[in-house]
Amino acid sequence: MDGGLIWRPVRRAMREVAVVGIGLIKVEKQSALSLRQMGVEVIRQAMESARVDEVDALYAGNMLADELQGQKHVASLLASEAGLVGVEALQVRAATATGAAALRMAYLSVASGEADVAIAVGVEKMSSAPATPALAKALDAELEVPTGATLISQNARLMQMYLERYKVPYEGFVNFAINAHRNAATNPYALFQKEVTPEIVLNSRIVNEPLRLYDCSPICDGAAAVVLVPADQARAFTDMPVRILASAVATDYFRVEDRPDPLALDAARLSARRAMRRANVNPRDIDFFEVHDAFSIMAALILEAAGFAERGEGWKLAAEGEIFREGRIPIATMGGLKARGHPIGATAIYQTAEIVLQLTGRAGPNQIPHARRAMLQSVGGAGSTVLTHIFEIMG
Amino acid sequence: MDGGLIWRPVRRAMREVAVVGIGLIKVEKQSALSLRQMGVEVIRQAMESARVDEVDALYAGNMLADELQGQKHVASLLASEAGLVGVEALQVRAATATGAAALRMAYLSVASGEADVAIAVGVEKMSSAPATPALAKALDAELEVPTGATLISQNARLMQMYLERYKVPYEGFVNFAINAHRNAATNPYALFQKEVTPEIVLNSRIVNEPLRLYDCSPICDGAAAVVLVPADQARAFTDMPVRILASAVATDYFRVEDRPDPLALDAARLSARRAMRRANVNPRDIDFFEVHDAFSIMAALILEAAGFAERGEGWKLAAEGEIFREGRIPIATMGGLKARGHPIGATAIYQTAEIVLQLTGRAGPNQIPHARRAMLQSVGGAGSTVLTHIFEIMG
Repeated sequence: MDGGLIWRPVRRAMREVAVVGIGLIKVEKQSALSLRQMGVEVIRQAMESARVDEVDALYAGNMLADELQGQKHVASLLASEAGLVGVEALQVRAATATGAAALRMAYLSVASGEADVAIAVGVEKMSSAPATPALAKALDAELEVPTGATLISQNARLMQMYLERYKVPYEGFVNFAINAHRNAATNPYALFQKEVTPEIVLNSRIVNEPLRLYDCSPICDGAAAVVLVPADQARAFTDMPVRILASAVATDYFRVEDRPDPLALDAARLSARRAMRRANVNPRDIDFFEVHDAFSIMAALILEAAGFAERGEGWKLAAEGEIFREGRIPIATMGGLKARGHPIGATAIYQTAEIVLQLTGRAGPNQIPHARRAMLQSVGGAGSTVLTHIFEIMG
Repeated sequence: MDGGLIWRPVRRAMREVAVVGIGLIKVEKQSALSLRQMGVEVIRQAMESARVDEVDALYAGNMLADELQGQKHVASLLASEAGLVGVEALQVRAATATGAAALRMAYLSVASGEADVAIAVGVEKMSSAPATPALAKALDAELEVPTGATLISQNARLMQMYLERYKVPYEGFVNFAINAHRNAATNPYALFQKEVTPEIVLNSRIVNEPLRLYDCSPICDGAAAVVLVPADQARAFTDMPVRILASAVATDYFRVEDRPDPLALDAARLSARRAMRRANVNPRDIDFFEVHDAFSIMAALILEAAGFAERGEGWKLAAEGEIFREGRIPIATMGGLKARGHPIGATAIYQTAEIVLQLTGRAGPNQIPHARRAMLQSVGGAGSTVLTHIFEIMG
């Protein structure tokens, strides 16, 4: 194609973007608040914490309201209900990575100069009706779902493949649950606020061989919001802004079975590489990593794909305790998807808010000492879409 | 709030963005192609017309696949099926304005410098199952839908209010349908390729008093795609690039009944004003206007809100023939939502492609002579979210 030969684009410098406000509510099995009430509450909190009373744009992450609340116009509804009538409001999605998609769109709107103050809000109320059928729509409706595939079965398949290929005993994975629950126990916003023992994990029921209950994140209700502004203006809003060093997205072959090596999790590898190149960092520069531990196998695969472990050795970071707060690469520092909870469209916004708490020294008993830089990875479906964001405290 | 007092952001110059390729298929009552096949076909066409064999990002507009195809991960699916594995892919929504939301996100990604080549693709297959219940989810699921409200009933209400307040006879609206069908008759991609007479319109069945069949856009299948690149690189892709002068979004009170004056269509007014200010143009500079004529009343209200007619006089532009191709402000130049068809998530992408055909002198019998600048407006719900885009042929 001749277009490609003569075309040499110059990437102009974008505006740098910072997070200057956060809002979050406790994740619950069943919130007393409605979908919109949850959204309005975290928007209010985030705006208050950023000391703004108006915004230019609001990007909403929500995956399941179509089926569970009969609502397909969530962003505009939230803007109106939050008293922000007039602002730009759009909904963004990437299946189970939807919260990160909203964050990315807010990032692009500030980076481009279109918005000076943007909110990314994620909200999901999964308790309204059975969520599993709607969640399966993250997979291929023509070629996967009719065979009975669900997100659970696909992750079970990946875990089985992993255990067999690398000859790992199931016990090698228990620390993913132990770590998540330990961190959630002291996070006031987490769904599960109690620690678990290896025995509890190992004796929990099998959901889908080899996945046990404690390998899976829970169905729950939650909402979170963050306020983004240009980094060079950030100190007008907060004393402790957190810069977004990079935002990147990659896709893989949509269906797991079409991938040359499903355990490679290529979209995670690619989006991490893009983000790290943009941020000019490597895995050693990352102080902690909020992974998409919707299933423990996903956490192991992400640690490998993003460059924190060799192939087949991600589980060892758990088994050897390196994922704990005091370890080499802490993950799920506030409980992760598994124990803080995974209210889909809100999850990555919770993680962003938690990263801000960590980087600004406000993570309480969960504080990672001297943390300056963090990475966030969000997985849509069983690895079809992966978003990576990298954050750094502004020095 | 003290943040507001000391904070003086400087809007940096964004990269300018141009459309350099289009792809579209005929709108049909029921396409023989599946949702994904329709999407893949227009992506292929758009890339071919822009002479690119790779892209950085794909933004997909789709409103109804959740319910109608059981598919909630449309962007990633389309990227994979189109052979673009690896690229960024996200889905964007704004209810019935969803196509325009995908266009805006592609615009932001190129404007910000994140992408050098982005595709906005819209796809909707409404024939798979009854679409009306899913369409109603553009309204408030708690406070409007339970009362029986649908997009049709809300538009009927607006039209009734209009006829009464401004003492307009129903006959004043017939030219909206006449014009749309006249233009669709010579558009090979339109659903309805025949003209209609005033008698046919006036004798068509009443759908919801006072709306008649010919006031409403049809349920249909369709897909369209456009390729966006930085304007200063555009000539490497095509001899006739079309610059996007502005992209803007605004919201209104979500529920029609909460708006101080529902006929003001404030989100349309506000987003048009933002876009025209950004583009430094006024209504006199616009050669034709692709409006959101999902219902004829919406076309009349948009003409007023966007500044092309005084309040209460939008219908006169139709009645006096000014909306025809030879009139002062042609609308629906390729058939509009009413007669080309309104495959929701694809609609604004069809309109963008049609604007490109017009501005590059390739609109065949539908050509607006000497058209240099065009506006596009897209309405989510009954006016809750409105997007405005302004285009100009690159001289």
